[in-house]
Amino acid sequence: MMLIQDIIAKKKVGGRLSREEIDFFVDGIVSGEIPDYQAAALLMAVWIKGMDVRETVDLTLSMAESGDMLDLSEIPGIKLDKHSTGGVADTTTLILAPLVSALGYPVAKLSGRGLGHTGGTLDKLESIPGMRVDLTKRQFIEQVKDIGIAVSGQTADIAPADRILYALRDVTSTTDNISLMASSIMSKKLASGSDAIVLDVKTGRGAFLPDVESSVELARLMVDIGRASGRRMAAVVTDMDQPLGTAIGNAIEVIEAAETLKDPKPSRLLDIVLHLAILMIRCAGDGRDGALIEEDLMKALRSGAALDRLALMVSRQGGDASYIEDTSRFELAGIVREAIAQECGWVKGIDALELGKASVTIGAGRKRKGDPVDFGVGISIRKHVGDRVEAGEAYATIYARSDACAASALMSCEKAYSFSPERADSLPLVYETIE
Amino acid sequence: MMLIQDIIAKKKVGGRLSREEIDFFVDGIVSGEIPDYQAAALLMAVWIKGMDVRETVDLTLSMAESGDMLDLSEIPGIKLDKHSTGGVADTTTLILAPLVSALGYPVAKLSGRGLGHTGGTLDKLESIPGMRVDLTKRQFIEQVKDIGIAVSGQTADIAPADRILYALRDVTSTTDNISLMASSIMSKKLASGSDAIVLDVKTGRGAFLPDVESSVELARLMVDIGRASGRRMAAVVTDMDQPLGTAIGNAIEVIEAAETLKDPKPSRLLDIVLHLAILMIRCAGDGRDGALIEEDLMKALRSGAALDRLALMVSRQGGDASYIEDTSRFELAGIVREAIAQECGWVKGIDALELGKASVTIGAGRKRKGDPVDFGVGISIRKHVGDRVEAGEAYATIYARSDACAASALMSCEKAYSFSPERADSLPLVYETIE
Repeated sequence: MMLIQDIIAKKKVGGRLSREEIDFFVDGIVSGEIPDYQAAALLMAVWIKGMDVRETVDLTLSMAESGDMLDLSEIPGIKLDKHSTGGVADTTTLILAPLVSALGYPVAKLSGRGLGHTGGTLDKLESIPGMRVDLTKRQFIEQVKDIGIAVSGQTADIAPADRILYALRDVTSTTDNISLMASSIMSKKLASGSDAIVLDVKTGRGAFLPDVESSVELARLMVDIGRASGRRMAAVVTDMDQPLGTAIGNAIEVIEAAETLKDPKPSRLLDIVLHLAILMIRCAGDGRDGALIEEDLMKALRSGAALDRLALMVSRQGGDASYIEDTSRFELAGIVREAIAQECGWVKGIDALELGKASVTIGAGRKRKGDPVDFGVGISIRKHVGDRVEAGEAYATIYARSDACAASALMSCEKAYSFSPERADSLPLVYETIE
Repeated sequence: MMLIQDIIAKKKVGGRLSREEIDFFVDGIVSGEIPDYQAAALLMAVWIKGMDVRETVDLTLSMAESGDMLDLSEIPGIKLDKHSTGGVADTTTLILAPLVSALGYPVAKLSGRGLGHTGGTLDKLESIPGMRVDLTKRQFIEQVKDIGIAVSGQTADIAPADRILYALRDVTSTTDNISLMASSIMSKKLASGSDAIVLDVKTGRGAFLPDVESSVELARLMVDIGRASGRRMAAVVTDMDQPLGTAIGNAIEVIEAAETLKDPKPSRLLDIVLHLAILMIRCAGDGRDGALIEEDLMKALRSGAALDRLALMVSRQGGDASYIEDTSRFELAGIVREAIAQECGWVKGIDALELGKASVTIGAGRKRKGDPVDFGVGISIRKHVGDRVEAGEAYATIYARSDACAASALMSCEKAYSFSPERADSLPLVYETIE
């Protein structure tokens, strides 16, 4: 008979757990037979002693199989998914998903809510009046079959073991472990049923992993896990030391996405979108060089095909697509304050974590699970690292509901930005690509 | 503001916890503000990363101060205590305590119940009709003042933090850690108020620590902890690879104790008693050589003074002292079976753990907390390691309540004993003395 005490005792001295032992643990936490305190002891032993790739793959599969496994096989073609580990001013999905779909690839994306200082695609989409992100499994599959794109919340009981462990890791200081992070993310992705998954692992102060090295390690491990269970995989490690795009919030990020689809001017956000789109399309079997694929992508942007695909998805999910066509219909919060540069110079750094937290403070995110989100508040980033600023020029704009909130966010902007009298280099954007 | 997550995060990378952090943890588990799962995560981090002596002393003091601290100062003289980490056929206390008391030293001993395969002094004492081991604090102190000796269960709310952590360690595989063991034992000893504490750390298969090296480490650490909080300390590491005395059980061990007090023939049990008694008396301030103190001890035994002191304690605590004077009054269980040697030879080994478990199986100990104990059952050890046995000679006798129990215990005896056709060495008795 297997005993959880024996499994804990094995791991605390660095032993390798078998698939049977991992299944016993995962089944036990879902059934409630293994109490929190034993799970916490094992998590800490895993945090300190580590798990190898085989154990991590086994934990991922065991957690994926702890709940519903979505079957997307009735949708023809290679179903594509993309996942970001979470960032600030990162509205990538709202541009990327319709763009890739416009080229004829089915995009079946389950997205999440904002977490901590990072935004969430579901919250952003809900800023469009009428928009539903709670599709049933049936609706989700039918929509991808019909229009080639759906972005929704979890349609089923996905990886309940991960939900339990995630909550426990949060309060036992066992969050920042590569194996536990990789298995948590990948268990949900594997259960979500896509054939190909492209991962965007964020690195830097605004990300959950601050250093490039461990971000690359996490990306490689997740690619290994996905491939070990037969999925097509690619991953990038990208900068989150400064906010990615020009908008932090919900409606304000939808506006940025729609405007980028309408008028694809060069930007860090567009660069990431194109890079990820090429990886997704290559995963789907297009063996051409990235530059050739990029030509097709730019065509889909310039022709309006990608924008149309977003509008189509919004109206299919009950949203008012006129907001996509005319983004001035979105009402941003009425108290507007600008952060003004005192002297001429260059932007040396922007603390993405500080700005992400500021956006939560003024209501764009949740302080506690279940809090309502204010779609209209946000921060507009008008200067990035390396940009020139003149004395008296605004480098950020705040949209808030009260003077106190605006003042607090203004202070955060002043704290987050650092300036230099000399020219400052812009930051790298992509640190590593794995495909 | 202190957060338990930060304390866990510090220890998981091997950081040293401050006294304030340890107090925060101990207070939190006693008040219930820190839930089991966070305590379990910290225990595992401590198990793997360790604690240094300063941290271990701080944890011990913090746990000692988590409940009542007994004040024995109104009893004149140096109050002596002795603690064993638990063994099999180890009735030392019932001989040692009256012997040391007979020489005029006050013995204020709080004892425990049987734990796992090991016996407990309180259970043994309760095999004497009428005997009470639940003295109040007042009764305990008055008795030591009046007659110089008391052996009782916990008289107050001693180290409640240890009680919580002990139960949690048991189910999270974090029992076998030197720092956690030392702080658990010493927190209770420090709260029990004695001035001098002599520790008997058992080592071998029948002990909780199987190897001599870690037993010595545990003994040294506990001596350091005691001295750091101003107590007089000594410790020995002694053999528990075979049962110590000739009796495993409750009444049967009281019989052995009383008979040893009446007729102190050379034995491993008497050797340990004399060794510990000398250490206790030296702790109390008698600077003479051990051999001289031993003369006094043997006098107290031969004169019957030590036996009288046991009888006095028994009657003061409500017990029928005639059982001490005439041990044939104890009724052992009626189903008696002998384990018989098949061939001539020497006893090569006796698995004390196996015999300890066998005694629990037939009812001498508890399978679950709160189970009743059968005082009359037990195993009599008639041959020790190195002893000669003839074919057909009995090497152990079982006293049981049913044929099935007797048969099971007989099988355990056959399993526990190993024989050799060649002469076998007896085992060392004392591995290390620290004073």
